[in-house]
Formats: sequence, structure tokens, C-alpha cells
Amino acid sequence: MTTKTKVIIAGAGFGGIAAAKRLAGCDADVTIIDRRNYHLFQPLLYQVATADLSPADIAWPIRGLFTRYRNIAVALSEVTAINPSAQEVVAGGRRYPYDYLILATGSGNSYFNHPEWEPDAPGLKRIIDAIEIRKRILLAFEQAEIADNPAAQRRLLNFVVIGGGPTGVEMAGAIAELAKVALARDFRHIDPKAARIVLVEAGQRLLASFPPALSQYAQSCLEQLGVEIALGQPVQAIDTQGVRIGETLLPTATVIWAAGVKVEGPGQWLGVETDRGGRVAVTADLSVPNHPNIFVIGDAAKVIWEGEKLVPGLAPAAKQQGRYVADVICARMENRTAPPPFRYRHVGSLATIGRNAAVVDFGRFKLKGWLAWWFWGLVHIYFLINARAATLVLLQWFWAYLTHKKGARLITGLRPLFSPPKR
Amino acid sequence: MTTKTKVIIAGAGFGGIAAAKRLAGCDADVTIIDRRNYHLFQPLLYQVATADLSPADIAWPIRGLFTRYRNIAVALSEVTAINPSAQEVVAGGRRYPYDYLILATGSGNSYFNHPEWEPDAPGLKRIIDAIEIRKRILLAFEQAEIADNPAAQRRLLNFVVIGGGPTGVEMAGAIAELAKVALARDFRHIDPKAARIVLVEAGQRLLASFPPALSQYAQSCLEQLGVEIALGQPVQAIDTQGVRIGETLLPTATVIWAAGVKVEGPGQWLGVETDRGGRVAVTADLSVPNHPNIFVIGDAAKVIWEGEKLVPGLAPAAKQQGRYVADVICARMENRTAPPPFRYRHVGSLATIGRNAAVVDFGRFKLKGWLAWWFWGLVHIYFLINARAATLVLLQWFWAYLTHKKGARLITGLRPLFSPPKR
Repeated sequence: MTTKTKVIIAGAGFGGIAAAKRLAGCDADVTIIDRRNYHLFQPLLYQVATADLSPADIAWPIRGLFTRYRNIAVALSEVTAINPSAQEVVAGGRRYPYDYLILATGSGNSYFNHPEWEPDAPGLKRIIDAIEIRKRILLAFEQAEIADNPAAQRRLLNFVVIGGGPTGVEMAGAIAELAKVALARDFRHIDPKAARIVLVEAGQRLLASFPPALSQYAQSCLEQLGVEIALGQPVQAIDTQGVRIGETLLPTATVIWAAGVKVEGPGQWLGVETDRGGRVAVTADLSVPNHPNIFVIGDAAKVIWEGEKLVPGLAPAAKQQGRYVADVICARMENRTAPPPFRYRHVGSLATIGRNAAVVDFGRFKLKGWLAWWFWGLVHIYFLINARAATLVLLQWFWAYLTHKKGARLITGLRPLFSPPKR
Repeated sequence: MTTKTKVIIAGAGFGGIAAAKRLAGCDADVTIIDRRNYHLFQPLLYQVATADLSPADIAWPIRGLFTRYRNIAVALSEVTAINPSAQEVVAGGRRYPYDYLILATGSGNSYFNHPEWEPDAPGLKRIIDAIEIRKRILLAFEQAEIADNPAAQRRLLNFVVIGGGPTGVEMAGAIAELAKVALARDFRHIDPKAARIVLVEAGQRLLASFPPALSQYAQSCLEQLGVEIALGQPVQAIDTQGVRIGETLLPTATVIWAAGVKVEGPGQWLGVETDRGGRVAVTADLSVPNHPNIFVIGDAAKVIWEGEKLVPGLAPAAKQQGRYVADVICARMENRTAPPPFRYRHVGSLATIGRNAAVVDFGRFKLKGWLAWWFWGLVHIYFLINARAATLVLLQWFWAYLTHKKGARLITGLRPLFSPPKR
């Protein structure tokens, strides 16, 4: 159909979208392949899981982002193989030829060689994960309300979050606020305020990537919210009955996994070396060794920064890499000098804990408390995809701030609730 | 625990909620049992199916509606039996004793003795139905975009709506606008404007409950939107390949059922007489013959109006009946004179067809066109459950009106999209 240079982008996360937008200015024929039809604003996904926001507030159809860019096509399909010698990607049984390939397929959850834990401890990566977690949390309260024995009731009112990084901290704080504020007066046979929320972290402090003072602050905020924190305690086992931490079995029906990520895809498809987390070690221009026209960016890439550190799995890092490889490709297409090697610019880290409590670490500029919380909110609103989303999210946050209520307390799911009685 | 009069309400639709709110003023101990945790604003459900609104915009947690009413409890459970002699409802294996019982369990889809059609022609009753229909509609376009043969493409771009009542008319109009406006410029290998939308009605006109002039208007509006209308054509067969209408097989992957309702539950539980649609024939005070303390209201009740007509399955009818039976129960509890027999007051009928096109029939006050459309919107906003929902829906409608875009174009679902390749 066309003899233009073909660029395939696998994955429409922050990295893939940034690359595509930058490539729109080049005379390339771009196809984005993703197995979902939406781009997800991952940093707010936990708010879907805790009934604060609706999926459509933080996810937008990929093709809707490129309506105006006639040289960018989108294929809803799943990449299953790459044939570098034929320069083809295989997705959904079809072959997509490429001149340049950008792999921006992100990461999944790592259960540290315990895949059997997944059904009882879902992670938070996709919209359906968030809906499932929301369902489990809300259903636990509903089932406790109609349970006829106190032991079953207590088990249902225990909630365990595994992993003390930003996602774990945000989830634990949000579940505590849900139980102790939003749901507090809605039940007649149980007291939601009696719910136990336990945050389990194998390391010695929460938010390990932040300075110790901010970790300490996050911990005391969570404790004030009533969250129990178990540090230095790796999880031993998870099943339908509960979680074993050290020698203790904590009976619970609701476990949320926020403990580790794992990359699958690029390393296997290309048969190249990866680190233990599955990340592909890339060269200075983010291409794969011996495959100069294949690039790996975002969570899937192992990129070193300041001599030894791994570039973190954050949206700004993926975006910088996406724009960088687009520039490399455009320069090669136009026979211009290649850009200098990729250099990651760390902007900063943010995590929210609960109402009026967050931590901000921008290097020399550190912040905690209510000002950090408002700053966190502003930054997230600013980076939402468009004015419509920003207005809707702002409005819902504002309403929740004033009323202490949650707006999306729906238990939905394609699996029927009652046949068979499962949880 | 308490010796107060116990009232059980099965079903938290318009009727059940209205009854509970009115009973809050009485000294009764009320329990609402519903198998979902949300009250659904059914009249706008089709807008979730067509990606205009999110589920949480039109569904609210039942217990959240009764936070302030300490004598009203909510149980997320499914009624499976009633034992009138013991005065007990069985739900989720538990027994709930009652002094008065209100059955407000609504209706499901009737496939006219063809239950095998259901998987290929989902109806629009629950949130998950709307999400499933949204998924099928959007997925058809996505699959057409990557299909490699024209016949498969044409089949995927055929959409069939069965049933020419308000839901069918609204769905057909909304799918046409989705294809011909919202999606028009988002694809590169297909032209969404080439989609065929076929509305099939067994009777001789659309919107049979409206005056013929408004039916005619609705038909010409839909035809202008590019909808094909097949009147007097009962459906012969539905399967994964398509729909057989008369002698013609229309190949399609997307069929939506809006043709008939059926009541299940109350008749069987009580072993009493029902009409062909499963409705329980009730007495003048909406109680079940020979069961003076059991009431049936809403879609599940057969109530006659103006001598011969069946009270329609509309929200105002269910609400009137809910308030009425609450008054009957309060009067009996307080030994006051019973209210006079139930009399349905018909307010009117509304249906929207598409942008700036709707029909309104309030008896002597009839309206069509843009004024009817704005009136339709105002009425629906007014009846939304609270100011938050009204603001969010208004904002989304306003944004869609200005930009011609849809805000919730997400393909989600717990079943994975790709393994096994199904549709």
C-alpha cells in the first residue's frame, strides 16, 4: 500500500504513546499494537480499586488519541512473536512488517516463583484487576454483614496488602479510609471501623526509594489511619484461607499484591539476555544489542542511571525513552546525526497516603503533609490525558473531599456473584 | 434482637427503593434484599452500552441511599424461596422472618422460548450486560480493522437490534451515531460510516405505545441516521453467524436483544397464578390473593389500568406502587384506615432517538424534535439520584454534545480478549 518507512510500536503505555506522538512529525507509517483498546493512566489505577474513580476516568481509547494523526494506525491485537531476520511482528496470527520496532510492553506482577498465589492475591495492573479488587473489598464487607458467625465476620474484615512501595501504601491508606470513613455508617450488623488493614513489607521500611524521613512519616500516617504495618516480614504462603506471615496465619478473604514486577515478552521474543526481572539490557541508544532497529523502552528495558541505579518504572522515565527512540528513528530516516546517548532526567517521586497526607521527593525539594497532598493531586490532574478527564476527576475528588463518600462503590464482574458461592 | 414489625423488601429497583424510603417514616424494621449491591438507573443503561456513560454514573450502592435511615438494613443476597406459612424469606441460605413482604424483583429478558439465543443476543438489564454489549460493539470495529478479508469485515460491521420499543430505538440511534460520528475518523483500514445498523421489529410500527405520528417521526429520524428498519419481521433464528429475518440471513457478530421482558421469581416462589409474562395478578391493594401481607409491585405485578391496559413497566409506575404499599403497611401497623385501592397515574412516555431528536407523549402534550430531546435530557437528569450524579452526567453529555465524542470507549471484561479467539 505504501513504501513509507514502517514503525511498529508494541504497547500503548506511557512510553509507546510518547514515541508515537513524536513520530507523528516524521514521514513514517506507524502502527501501534496493543492487546487492550485503551491507554491506562496507571498512577491512578488504585483509585478504581478503592471505588474513588471509574475506569473510564483514567483510561482512553488508544485510537482516540491519534484521530488527527493520519499516519498512525492502531491494531487491537496481542504480539506473540518477532522474526528479526524477516523484520516482522506476529500478532493475532497476522504478520506486521517493520523497518523499526519499539517494544514498550511494560511489566506484569511477579509472585516470586509462587504463581499459585495470584488467584487469591490479585495485583493491580489492568482495569479488570482494579474492578476485581474493588469487588473483593466491597464484597468482604457485604458478606460480613450477613455472616452468621463471628469468626467468619472477623476473617472477612481483615484486609492484607503485600508490598510497601507507593502502590501498597496508597492501597492500604485508601482501604483504611474506605472502612473507617466512607462505609462507617452504612452497615447495621457489623462495624466497618473494626476492619483490620495490614500492610506487609519484606524490607525494613516502607517506600524504600524515598529518604528514610519520608518513609517514617508515611508509616506514622498509616498507623494513625489504623493500618497495621508488618516490616521485615516476607510472606510465607497465601491461599483462600488467608496469609501466612512468619509463623502467624492471618485469616482473610482479601489480599492485594503490590510487591514486585516482572517483565515478560521482549526477552523471550528476541532470545536475548535479560536481568532477573526479565528486563532487556539495551545499548546507549536503547536499541537491543545486535538489533539496531529494535528498541526496548519503559519497564521492559534495563537502563542504568547515575552509574549503578536502574532507571525506575515511572511514567516520566517511559515518556523520556519513548521520545528519545522516536528521535533516533527520525534522525536515521532523515540521515541526520543521531542524538547523543539516552540520559535519564529524574524529576522526582510522589506517593499519597491518605487525606491530606502525601510525600514528595524532588531531590533537594522534599515535602510531606497536606501541601504534598495537594501537590500530588495537582500533578496527577495535570498529566491526565485531556480536559474532560481532568474535569471529571477533579469534580469527583472535590465531591469526595467534601462529603467523605466514594463515588464508584459498585460490585460488578462477569462471573456471577452467587452461583457457585465462591468466596 | 427487636420486636418491631419486620418488613422485607426483595429488590432495590425503583419500586423497592420508593417503598423503603416511605417506610423509613414508620416504626418498622426494614431489610432490603438484593442480589446486587447497587440501585440502577435503568433508563440510562443503554448509554453505558454505547460508551456514553460509565456504570458508576447511573448506579449507586443501595446502602449508601439509606445511610441516614437507621431502621433500614441492606443484605446483598439472592432470594431463592418464600415460606408464607412460616413468614420467612430464604436468601443465600439464610432465613429472614417478615411480618410484611414486598416483592419488587423486576423483570428479565424474554427470548420467546428461544433461550439458546441469549449468548449471541444479550439483552440490556444489568450493568454487566451493558459492559458486555459495549465490548461487543467496540470489538466488532476493532476486529474489522484488522480482518484480512472483506466478507469478514462486512459481517463485523453489521449490527442488529431486535425490538422496536424505546430501548431498541435508543440503542439503534446511539450505535448509528457511534459509527457515523464518534468513530468516523479513528480507523485507517475500514470506514466506520459504512456500518449497517438494522432495527428489527415484529410489529407494524416502532414505539407501539406512542401515537402513530410519533412512531412515524422516530422511524424517519432513524432512517436519516442511516438505520435500516425492518418492520413486521419476526426473527427466525440467531446464532454466532448472524440473524435470520424472514428468509434472509444477515451475517453479523453483534446482536442486541430489546424485544421482550419476562418475570421470574414471585409467581414460582408463592405458587400463585401469573399471566404469560410471569406477572402476578394482585388485588386492589397490590397484595397477593390469599396472602394479605405479601405485596408484588413494579414489573413483577400485573396491575390493570383504565379498564383493560396493563400498567407499563416504567419507573414512575414502580415508584407509585412502592409508595402505595408502604402506606398500606404503615396504616395496618398503626391500625389506621387503609388507603383506597391503588390507582395508577400515567405521567407520560419519553424516548430519545439521537442528537436533537426525541419524542414525548404526555397525553394532550405531545412533542418531537430538539425541544423534546432537551426535555428528555432534563427529565433524566432531574431523576438521577443525587447532585453528584447529575453533575457528572450533565458534564459528560455537554462534552459529548460539543465534541461529538464518546467518553467511555473501553473494552473490558473478565474473560480475556484473546485466548481462545472466540468471536
